[in-house]
Amino acid sequence: MSSKVRVVIYGAGGYGGVGLVENLLNHPGVEISALVSREGAGEAYFKLYPHLRGMMDQEIEHAETFEPEGRGDFVFFSTPDGVGQKIASRYLKCGYRIIDFSGDFRFNNPKTYEDYSAWQQGKTEHACPELLNDCVYGSPEWNREALKMAQVVGNPGCMAISCLLALYPVSQPSLIDTDSIVLDVKTGISGAGKKPKALFHFPAADGNSYAYKVGKHQHLFEIEKHLSLWTEKEVVVSFTPHVIPAVRGILSTCYCKLDKNVEFSQVNEAFTKAYAQSPFVHYQGEALNELIHARGSNQCRLSVNYVERNHSIVITSVIDNLQKGQSGNAVQVMNIMLGLEETHGLTQYSRYP
Amino acid sequence: MSSKVRVVIYGAGGYGGVGLVENLLNHPGVEISALVSREGAGEAYFKLYPHLRGMMDQEIEHAETFEPEGRGDFVFFSTPDGVGQKIASRYLKCGYRIIDFSGDFRFNNPKTYEDYSAWQQGKTEHACPELLNDCVYGSPEWNREALKMAQVVGNPGCMAISCLLALYPVSQPSLIDTDSIVLDVKTGISGAGKKPKALFHFPAADGNSYAYKVGKHQHLFEIEKHLSLWTEKEVVVSFTPHVIPAVRGILSTCYCKLDKNVEFSQVNEAFTKAYAQSPFVHYQGEALNELIHARGSNQCRLSVNYVERNHSIVITSVIDNLQKGQSGNAVQVMNIMLGLEETHGLTQYSRYP
Amino acid sequence: MSSKVRVVIYGAGGYGGVGLVENLLNHPGVEISALVSREGAGEAYFKLYPHLRGMMDQEIEHAETFEPEGRGDFVFFSTPDGVGQKIASRYLKCGYRIIDFSGDFRFNNPKTYEDYSAWQQGKTEHACPELLNDCVYGSPEWNREALKMAQVVGNPGCMAISCLLALYPVSQPSLIDTDSIVLDVKTGISGAGKKPKALFHFPAADGNSYAYKVGKHQHLFEIEKHLSLWTEKEVVVSFTPHVIPAVRGILSTCYCKLDKNVEFSQVNEAFTKAYAQSPFVHYQGEALNELIHARGSNQCRLSVNYVERNHSIVITSVIDNLQKGQSGNAVQVMNIMLGLEETHGLTQYSRYP
Amino acid sequence: MSSKVRVVIYGAGGYGGVGLVENLLNHPGVEISALVSREGAGEAYFKLYPHLRGMMDQEIEHAETFEPEGRGDFVFFSTPDGVGQKIASRYLKCGYRIIDFSGDFRFNNPKTYEDYSAWQQGKTEHACPELLNDCVYGSPEWNREALKMAQVVGNPGCMAISCLLALYPVSQPSLIDTDSIVLDVKTGISGAGKKPKALFHFPAADGNSYAYKVGKHQHLFEIEKHLSLWTEKEVVVSFTPHVIPAVRGILSTCYCKLDKNVEFSQVNEAFTKAYAQSPFVHYQGEALNELIHARGSNQCRLSVNYVERNHSIVITSVIDNLQKGQSGNAVQVMNIMLGLEETHGLTQYSRYP
Repeated sequence: MSSKVRVVIYGAGGYGGVGLVENLLNHPGVEISALVSREGAGEAYFKLYPHLRGMMDQEIEHAETFEPEGRGDFVFFSTPDGVGQKIASRYLKCGYRIIDFSGDFRFNNPKTYEDYSAWQQGKTEHACPELLNDCVYGSPEWNREALKMAQVVGNPGCMAISCLLALYPVSQPSLIDTDSIVLDVKTGISGAGKKPKALFHFPAADGNSYAYKVGKHQHLFEIEKHLSLWTEKEVVVSFTPHVIPAVRGILSTCYCKLDKNVEFSQVNEAFTKAYAQSPFVHYQGEALNELIHARGSNQCRLSVNYVERNHSIVITSVIDNLQKGQSGNAVQVMNIMLGLEETHGLTQYSRYP
Repeated sequence: MSSKVRVVIYGAGGYGGVGLVENLLNHPGVEISALVSREGAGEAYFKLYPHLRGMMDQEIEHAETFEPEGRGDFVFFSTPDGVGQKIASRYLKCGYRIIDFSGDFRFNNPKTYEDYSAWQQGKTEHACPELLNDCVYGSPEWNREALKMAQVVGNPGCMAISCLLALYPVSQPSLIDTDSIVLDVKTGISGAGKKPKALFHFPAADGNSYAYKVGKHQHLFEIEKHLSLWTEKEVVVSFTPHVIPAVRGILSTCYCKLDKNVEFSQVNEAFTKAYAQSPFVHYQGEALNELIHARGSNQCRLSVNYVERNHSIVITSVIDNLQKGQSGNAVQVMNIMLGLEETHGLTQYSRYP
Repeated sequence: MSSKVRVVIYGAGGYGGVGLVENLLNHPGVEISALVSREGAGEAYFKLYPHLRGMMDQEIEHAETFEPEGRGDFVFFSTPDGVGQKIASRYLKCGYRIIDFSGDFRFNNPKTYEDYSAWQQGKTEHACPELLNDCVYGSPEWNREALKMAQVVGNPGCMAISCLLALYPVSQPSLIDTDSIVLDVKTGISGAGKKPKALFHFPAADGNSYAYKVGKHQHLFEIEKHLSLWTEKEVVVSFTPHVIPAVRGILSTCYCKLDKNVEFSQVNEAFTKAYAQSPFVHYQGEALNELIHARGSNQCRLSVNYVERNHSIVITSVIDNLQKGQSGNAVQVMNIMLGLEETHGLTQYSRYP
Repeated sequence: MSSKVRVVIYGAGGYGGVGLVENLLNHPGVEISALVSREGAGEAYFKLYPHLRGMMDQEIEHAETFEPEGRGDFVFFSTPDGVGQKIASRYLKCGYRIIDFSGDFRFNNPKTYEDYSAWQQGKTEHACPELLNDCVYGSPEWNREALKMAQVVGNPGCMAISCLLALYPVSQPSLIDTDSIVLDVKTGISGAGKKPKALFHFPAADGNSYAYKVGKHQHLFEIEKHLSLWTEKEVVVSFTPHVIPAVRGILSTCYCKLDKNVEFSQVNEAFTKAYAQSPFVHYQGEALNELIHARGSNQCRLSVNYVERNHSIVITSVIDNLQKGQSGNAVQVMNIMLGLEETHGLTQYSRYP
């Protein structure tokens, strides 16, 4: 017991928090040492999530008063933009390594964060810019080595990782026309979090679908940064998120024109090769790629269709937004950071909501 | 045009309000003369309900400042308990006839209202008890004559009317054991109204079902009052509402033991006879009774199964909670009050949500 | 009564058939003179569709033995590819005018039909090619005049009309780069028809979503023919249909790069102007465009977002696949053909499924 | 590895089969030695269930030609009534112990089976009546000891076990009036199996609910047998199954009148005591009992509300029909039979469908 890594979940009340709890309950190498949240503070965790009665009866500690010193070795900040950056230094001083779920540590230089922040929210100063240069983007599939030594990791945005896993194999080097990429994303409603809102009220959401934040979603910035890095060009993509009436999952349809001299067989090879070492990414060729086949698991499932008529490919990427898109990926990254088996805690399915 | 009855919808912002609008838009004998609401006040109605753009562009007037004088002939109070009773007198003085959607005018004597109120909310005084003796319960199926002259009508509770339509044929006179009636009600989520809440957040509501307010729901009181009246006994029933993951509709399963000397053929006859003149109640014998067959319409669909093993019947009653359970029934009652064709405004389907 | 147009519904058993019935029940100028189908033949129509009990008790006549002579003036073939073309001549000889719901009469010359057929199914001969030159594509929005005199009309494919209504304003003349159009379509499951299949079994379909027939769907051909005609170029588009877990509706997201010299204000004007006379097409500027706002109605709702970053527009088009995408549009076309009010039979909502 | 118990899954293609696979994949004490099915025979298992690609690539063997000899130690017959009884003897001769998922081995004497069969299907002969006297009903909660030595176990019906777990604490001895028990069951659609049917076609099933097999469902027989045994009276109950538009789960609402001299505190004690040793049964007092809190897990969650007005209780029982109602319970029983930890293979969630 004493040899287990002690993990603090900061922001345990939301969907990100309960996803971490579900995954870590079955993890052989870590123990949850503290659940920290505003919501439900002072009560047993199962009061918030009754399905965990008997499995997680630990009391929730209040975010305002929680003292991290000596309480753990590792912390997840399952919090929105602007929270993690305010408390990260304090946790680092107490010896924690950190995975943050927001945009706070996804960009490893102050200038890029400034651009992100400006574009996104109109405010530009990071609370601890000195940490940015060493923070690592939490994508095991291309950052495995860097993650091993990372102190602070920015867990990817759910839609971003969905699209980036689809595009990585054909962007490095680029097999596609980077001027005409279209990313059409369909997300389940749990991606909007746990807070009730008019658009997510069951009678308004059932059977409904719509595009939102067209050309403006914050994950777009994250995607373009990576594509630009990989292809060594300034890439601008079309990116439209849509809500569909499902609880969990993201289906991203990525339209790419192949470069003239590229053949589809090269694409096939690129996908097969890119993820040969990645236990959670499944390349399925042209197979039908169903959203529910990733539901609950940490998998990313990729299919690619070649369209000869305009020498283009359509990549479909399927993940569970709360697993590979959030807490499952975070646990995978933690495993890498701690030198544990990459699949620990991720061989079962997550369940709520 | 000038001969049309002018209707005010007070509480136009909620589901009851939009249901009235949808029904009345196709009504040949009335016109909507004012839409009154707190929500959306000062804006065109289609801002609240975009599907009505081009069909209902009228501006919403604020509930606090609306002056009824001269603005209409008829008013619907689509408001919760406690609102209608405060403003009814004023509307009556201006010459309006009234249909109220809450429990405020469902009991036609002050004593019963006091009991209802006491049992339900712990407060006991009605704001205008002098109106109670003449108010009429809005059930066309057994109150058609009384409704013709009524000035104030209490529109039935959605679950109450669903069960009462099922029980009326076997209670008048009683063919059943009134000591062992069990009413198991399944309701779609729109019955809880338009306001987002944690239990109705799509990720929490999808695929979910549960019993609530066991033995305590306010509609239970309404049901027992009628059964007691019809059977001339003090009837106490078991009544449990359940939420099911559907937007619209109520399916009530009513378990009744037949009196020893009663044969099933008598039940069959009672149902056939009871609703022979009721255009919206369909008795289907033992046919499968599906919730979606009433969706959007003002119908109540009834099936009855006889179970020989314990000489009992299982009555299933299917309605749309927002139509026969609310605004559709109210329009039907209005038609009766105004001497119009009972089906006017109700030959098409309601649609939102 | 005798002055009403007598309408035969051939293929009354499917979703197209019941949609026609629901729309025509409220139509002041026509009467349903025969319901023809294999499914349910010999039984009252409400046996197939119990929600219509009391409204449509007419008996279904068997498709194999039905004799059209003298039975009607107008016929809808709500049948799949290959059926209408075999029986059209016979109905024409009996004086009927025809609207066919399949691809049989969507292409007004034999050569194009041959291409469609070859590409689609591998067979190439039309059963009555002599009718093709005079058949008219059933889109009121740009073919109103031609439809007035048409004898045979091909009702558009549901996804085709959804996309074409989105693209028509910017294609005539072209304001967009026709080489990079991407059409990402999300359709509700009723689009697949009434027949149960493994992918549409509730447990497999609930919460699910996937792309299918990538670059191969039959409606793609229909779309490209129109775009090529309008822009006078050979247009090839990227087109991917997706299933989403909704019963009704199509949401099409259309990605178009604007030509360099085109400003967004021109796009706005083009949309406003294109549909000024079209009672069922609503242009909403940048408003959120929700699928359920068209549910049950014959509307097409269009929103357009301008994305300055790559000088592109994202058009979202929302229809009910069974109304504007099928039977509602067909009734609208019939009204035009018969010189009736274009909105007759279409001011209420369709309801099943 | 060689010390693991080798398990054959006969009927691996259906929902029962995939549930067993998901549960056993994480089981430390057994290995799946053969997957037997008609559906998918000759192909890798993940072709049927793509979400298991990489986790269960084993080939499916054909049910007609599979030879059990030497292939395993334990077999699950995940098959409908009438299949297991034909092959059980052969498997027993090869040394297998058996859990059957149908009604074939739920009644431990030929007479009772005859009654069940007669009542249910009109045929009366069991294929191997000699096995019936020693078969055990697979309910760990009251048959734990008997199961340890059982050779043939009848896994309970999903609705039966849902109700029996609710009623067991108050029936042994009886605290309730056994003449007026009403069991109103709501089941998700996966309970009807994997085969597509008209009523379960997504457009027909979404938002729908109905009662079926009123007073005739086969699980009723199973329930009454146990109640009669426990209370030592001939018990006849009212039992109505309903479909609700959810994929997984059973919510049973059980109405019981308390005997006059019984106080609610006794009921509370009875529930607390009855399941003190049962790791998967959670008694929650009066807590809201939500269907999704059992989704995916092997839990049965029980709440009890006391209704003073008619001295009755309403017990709600929530299970996942495919886990505690089927494969999860079967794995639990297997663990008991094999002397393994009762929770092995059941600490994670099942996921498909």
